Amino acid sequence: MIPLTLSSPSLNRLVLFTSRYSHSPFLRNFNSLPLIHRKFKPQFGVRCHASSSSSSSFTAKSSKEIRKAQTKVVVDEKLTAIRRLFSDPGVGIDAYIIPSQDAHQSEFIAECYARRAHISGFTGSAGTAVVTKDKAALWTDGRYFLQAEKQLNSSWILMRAGNPGVPTASEWVADVLAPGGRVGVDPFLFSADAAEELKEVIAKKNHELVYLYNVNLVDEIWKDSRPKPPSKQIRIHDLKYAGVDVASKLLSLRNQIMDAGASAIVISMLDEIAWVLNLRGSDVPHSPVMYAYLIVEVDQAQLFVDNSKVTAEVKDHLKNARIELRPYDSILQGIDSLAERGAQLLMDPSTLNVAIISTYKSACERYSESEDKAKMKFTDSSNGQTANPSGIYMQSPISWAKAIKNDAELQGMKNSHLRDAAALAHFWAWLEEEVHKNANLTEVDVADRLLEFRSMQDGFMDTSFDTISGSGANGAIIHYKPEPESCSRVDPQKLYLLDSGAQYVDGTTDITRTVHFSEPSAREKECFTRVLQGHIALDEAVFPEGTPGFVLDGFARSSLWKIGLDYRHGTGHGVGAALNVHEGPQSISFRYGNMTPLQNGMIVSNEPGYYEDHAFGIRIENLLHVRDAETPNRFGGTTYLGFEKLTFFPIQTKMIDVSLLCDTEIDWLNRYHVEVWEKVSPLLEGSTTQQWLWNNTRPLAKR
Amino acid sequence: MIPLTLSSPSLNRLVLFTSRYSHSPFLRNFNSLPLIHRKFKPQFGVRCHASSSSSSSFTAKSSKEIRKAQTKVVVDEKLTAIRRLFSDPGVGIDAYIIPSQDAHQSEFIAECYARRAHISGFTGSAGTAVVTKDKAALWTDGRYFLQAEKQLNSSWILMRAGNPGVPTASEWVADVLAPGGRVGVDPFLFSADAAEELKEVIAKKNHELVYLYNVNLVDEIWKDSRPKPPSKQIRIHDLKYAGVDVASKLLSLRNQIMDAGASAIVISMLDEIAWVLNLRGSDVPHSPVMYAYLIVEVDQAQLFVDNSKVTAEVKDHLKNARIELRPYDSILQGIDSLAERGAQLLMDPSTLNVAIISTYKSACERYSESEDKAKMKFTDSSNGQTANPSGIYMQSPISWAKAIKNDAELQGMKNSHLRDAAALAHFWAWLEEEVHKNANLTEVDVADRLLEFRSMQDGFMDTSFDTISGSGANGAIIHYKPEPESCSRVDPQKLYLLDSGAQYVDGTTDITRTVHFSEPSAREKECFTRVLQGHIALDEAVFPEGTPGFVLDGFARSSLWKIGLDYRHGTGHGVGAALNVHEGPQSISFRYGNMTPLQNGMIVSNEPGYYEDHAFGIRIENLLHVRDAETPNRFGGTTYLGFEKLTFFPIQTKMIDVSLLCDTEIDWLNRYHVEVWEKVSPLLEGSTTQQWLWNNTRPLAKR
Repeated sequence: MIPLTLSSPSLNRLVLFTSRYSHSPFLRNFNSLPLIHRKFKPQFGVRCHASSSSSSSFTAKSSKEIRKAQTKVVVDEKLTAIRRLFSDPGVGIDAYIIPSQDAHQSEFIAECYARRAHISGFTGSAGTAVVTKDKAALWTDGRYFLQAEKQLNSSWILMRAGNPGVPTASEWVADVLAPGGRVGVDPFLFSADAAEELKEVIAKKNHELVYLYNVNLVDEIWKDSRPKPPSKQIRIHDLKYAGVDVASKLLSLRNQIMDAGASAIVISMLDEIAWVLNLRGSDVPHSPVMYAYLIVEVDQAQLFVDNSKVTAEVKDHLKNARIELRPYDSILQGIDSLAERGAQLLMDPSTLNVAIISTYKSACERYSESEDKAKMKFTDSSNGQTANPSGIYMQSPISWAKAIKNDAELQGMKNSHLRDAAALAHFWAWLEEEVHKNANLTEVDVADRLLEFRSMQDGFMDTSFDTISGSGANGAIIHYKPEPESCSRVDPQKLYLLDSGAQYVDGTTDITRTVHFSEPSAREKECFTRVLQGHIALDEAVFPEGTPGFVLDGFARSSLWKIGLDYRHGTGHGVGAALNVHEGPQSISFRYGNMTPLQNGMIVSNEPGYYEDHAFGIRIENLLHVRDAETPNRFGGTTYLGFEKLTFFPIQTKMIDVSLLCDTEIDWLNRYHVEVWEKVSPLLEGSTTQQWLWNNTRPLAKR
Repeated sequence: MIPLTLSSPSLNRLVLFTSRYSHSPFLRNFNSLPLIHRKFKPQFGVRCHASSSSSSSFTAKSSKEIRKAQTKVVVDEKLTAIRRLFSDPGVGIDAYIIPSQDAHQSEFIAECYARRAHISGFTGSAGTAVVTKDKAALWTDGRYFLQAEKQLNSSWILMRAGNPGVPTASEWVADVLAPGGRVGVDPFLFSADAAEELKEVIAKKNHELVYLYNVNLVDEIWKDSRPKPPSKQIRIHDLKYAGVDVASKLLSLRNQIMDAGASAIVISMLDEIAWVLNLRGSDVPHSPVMYAYLIVEVDQAQLFVDNSKVTAEVKDHLKNARIELRPYDSILQGIDSLAERGAQLLMDPSTLNVAIISTYKSACERYSESEDKAKMKFTDSSNGQTANPSGIYMQSPISWAKAIKNDAELQGMKNSHLRDAAALAHFWAWLEEEVHKNANLTEVDVADRLLEFRSMQDGFMDTSFDTISGSGANGAIIHYKPEPESCSRVDPQKLYLLDSGAQYVDGTTDITRTVHFSEPSAREKECFTRVLQGHIALDEAVFPEGTPGFVLDGFARSSLWKIGLDYRHGTGHGVGAALNVHEGPQSISFRYGNMTPLQNGMIVSNEPGYYEDHAFGIRIENLLHVRDAETPNRFGGTTYLGFEKLTFFPIQTKMIDVSLLCDTEIDWLNRYHVEVWEKVSPLLEGSTTQQWLWNNTRPLAKR
């Protein structure tokens, strides 16, 4: 699955923040720097499960089944209803902004939180709606212009984000309101950083940002038709897969809290909570997480989660780790009581919603001992311990700890990748035969069949994202998601790109292969070969510890650049172990602000590509494990790092123009195919698929 | 010549600023960001002409001649004398900081400005002296520890900058003074940015920074023995080399001033002034510049320069461009009168000294029309035109314009490189023969002889920096400068590294070659070959416009990284056209903060290396011209850029382990040697050196 793209930046950011960064060599605009620098945490959010009307269960379903008829909404009534609420007591606003987010900045969200889709009727994964007393506008990006045109009724203005002259949502709302306007938001749905930026933009036109803590206006009008919050039971992530028990993780976290001069931390990222507690949930599609907040203090901890999801077994598990249960909805009370206890609280303002941070800030002021101490310290880092509560802004230490896999997590990733490869082998062997026989096989059919093959593997739980199954020109649409009504057939005369992945009980997979079922053109072969050269260059890279991922990004592009080609997305993203398919803090990208060094134990994808509009798309993706390289020297005592492959699946040699490869590249491919055969063929014992794997791992002859 | 090194950062920065940057993934310390980001302008300053006691003329002299006996200074008396001045009327300070700089942040400075060397007796190129009422300390870096130990007397504390536990000069002075101390500096010798950071550090301990405008305390005690300011005449840089006349350059500059919403600019960088005015000077060694300031307003311009340097011809030249002459020492009056005229002044606080910026600030306040307008606007950028004077901070537009060479400048660079190659061919042919005959040939002898060969070429003016001539282990000292008393003989059994360059009337050269006079070891060959692979990878790189240089830095290291090796300096620096051998704003380095994109017309060095302590050093350096690449595609309408070589000189094939090279790398080398022969051999017509060139450009056979 693709890392952050140029053409499809996280819409929330695209829409809410003015893009002020420019390469102008002359004007030293320091304001531009934060924009490149604040992205420690990748913002994906581009492939949310759209708001289908099916249940929110994560249980894998075929694409056809998921996409049932979408009820035609009567938008005017909703707008009328929501505007009526503007003047309610305790509301009193002139505009309301409805983002795509849930309260946890999740990539995939539960349906009951798909408020922007409900109010606007637009079901794409990315978008922001703004409703004023007499206007309603929706921002989305180029992937969704056509869909939004169809789904929005005439009461809505479609804002084509990224098009020249189109204002951001915050600029627009600041412009259309009369001075002194009050712009309302649900403070749970904005990170503190995002709220701060929004506030600044509208303040320039003398508008005020109003946090409506007690009511979400969309929920108010949604009423009975609103899907119930997810309620599937939480399961324990077996220690044999987690590797480290909860007590040890909490001990380490508490040490980090104290090292930072703090006494507590509040966590809202769902994958971080699942990781620390060795729990997995089923609240959203593709990600094995549950809706919750976690507060860890030096001497106690509370999990804020819907009690109905907690089995007796999970209760025991939490009790053993001395974690108390609290209702999910009582998080702000928990935050308040932290301040009452005089906590020094670690908070990550890029992920925590502004409801939590604002509540803590004002509680700090309330509980401060004396008048002259009422000005609370909110520093980036603090050593001083005071009797008064205070806040420390800092990146979550769990983000980092989670990114560095332990041996058990790595073993689970390796094992699940081999089972995934076996499923893929059965699938591709079937597909190559089928595509020539069945002229009407569609991209959705193929994705559905892939799901069937994967479901047969041990420990299969879910897909790890919506399968990207693109024939011909559809392969050039980077975030293509085939829909039953509109998708293409898989054309045996065209390139076919398949980017897919699975959640297994022991690991998460993500792989892309591009094949031709007949004879690729010379152009297709040249492009494929150059993408492969980039893939090999990154795979073989060795680099000193401390190297940020972006240093390696150019290695994967160099071969394409030589003929004036490129791709508009990053080269690699972090991947969780039986967790989210996209995770930070590391990345391999042209976004040069992410200084996170690659570290032994991290997992990243290696997925260069090339996309020729209206023609074809190429991407070759493996997952890699960062590990110490056994270099004969260690200059300056430095450890050097390299990659170990997790993905073992053939790369179609038919697509390669051998004349472009140097001997070392041919050697790489042949060594890889030997490994693929050795590791995957035992899982195909007794199946005719084994012959397919044999055929597809034959060495490539040198020129 | 080497770009910025890891081990030898610009000492001024190293010493004066707390290094707060760390890779800690947890603590989000925003304070650390400016440190990486502020370096738009490379800080070289590592190879200053040390304070020899010879005259300040730039005329090329042999190394032996330059290094005359250094008078043994009686430091105590100087310290006593300078401390006596601390309590003078109008002084009143508790400490005085003496940096290495002149008033223009020059890399090479005139002797009369070598105040730090005078007060301390330490003549190394980099260092900062701090004198309090009872202490005196000198900071320098690892290159100079031994020299400083010898040269400092017992009144001085040697601060080994970069060693663990060693405070910076600003931290130290803040610590040793009693609270409320007054720290004096000459405001001409600190950039506004540097002064600001110094001020912040000492303010933490409640000390005050005091600008002594009217007196430099070292000059006061130096008195009659102080060298006279340089007084050589300024010459006109012929239009056939400059390419663009002064009127056109001023027109363009004035447009940029107006585009930035300003009405004037003040320039202090000597190479920028020389470039804009098509003038060249002889005030400092290695750089063809003259001490001056330049103020350009929309309708007038003034050059502040010592009148005695201005010939009648130069007077006419300036008059034609409507530039008035003012005494060098009257710059602050010029600044004051700008404010009086209500100027909106562009200023670069990273290069302009704080005397200028502070003077302008206070003049603005004085000349503002009304009380409530007295709070002056000092913004990063401004559109508004007001009747009141104001300042706008911005990177100098000349820095950028100068970096992008025009056709005439490029042609001059190409021509001078070929003449330089001819001189080098004569030199190397001589050296290879001589080194085996003359067992006592020293590194200094060789450098002196090289100067003789170069001097015979048309248009030769000077060396462009002190020649780095290092045999065996000395080659591993990155900034090695052989001294007659201590240098090694050139050992025929060891590797020899030669980094040198020249100033010609039409261009500036900078080239490094590493050779073995006998049989290199397998280790030396492997390291050389990997450095060469890095050199080739960068030389052949193609990349989209907008790419910052640091993206390519890893290309030059990748081959070394594969076996756990690296080098502790950047890969490439900008080079002036018949100007400074080091110039910004671009660079190719692991300093990822420099976002300056490489642009068509820029010149950069390509000089990867490898240094094995106490054994040998390897560096291979060519200069490259950035230009549009003729790619068959232009993805997204983007122009792709690549490099054209300016340097044509053989690379010793004896040093290459061919088994490590792929065919495309062998092809590169053979193509290069064909070009070297074709371009340089005509200049050697009739000389026996032509045979040497023929022998050294023979193709390398593939495996």
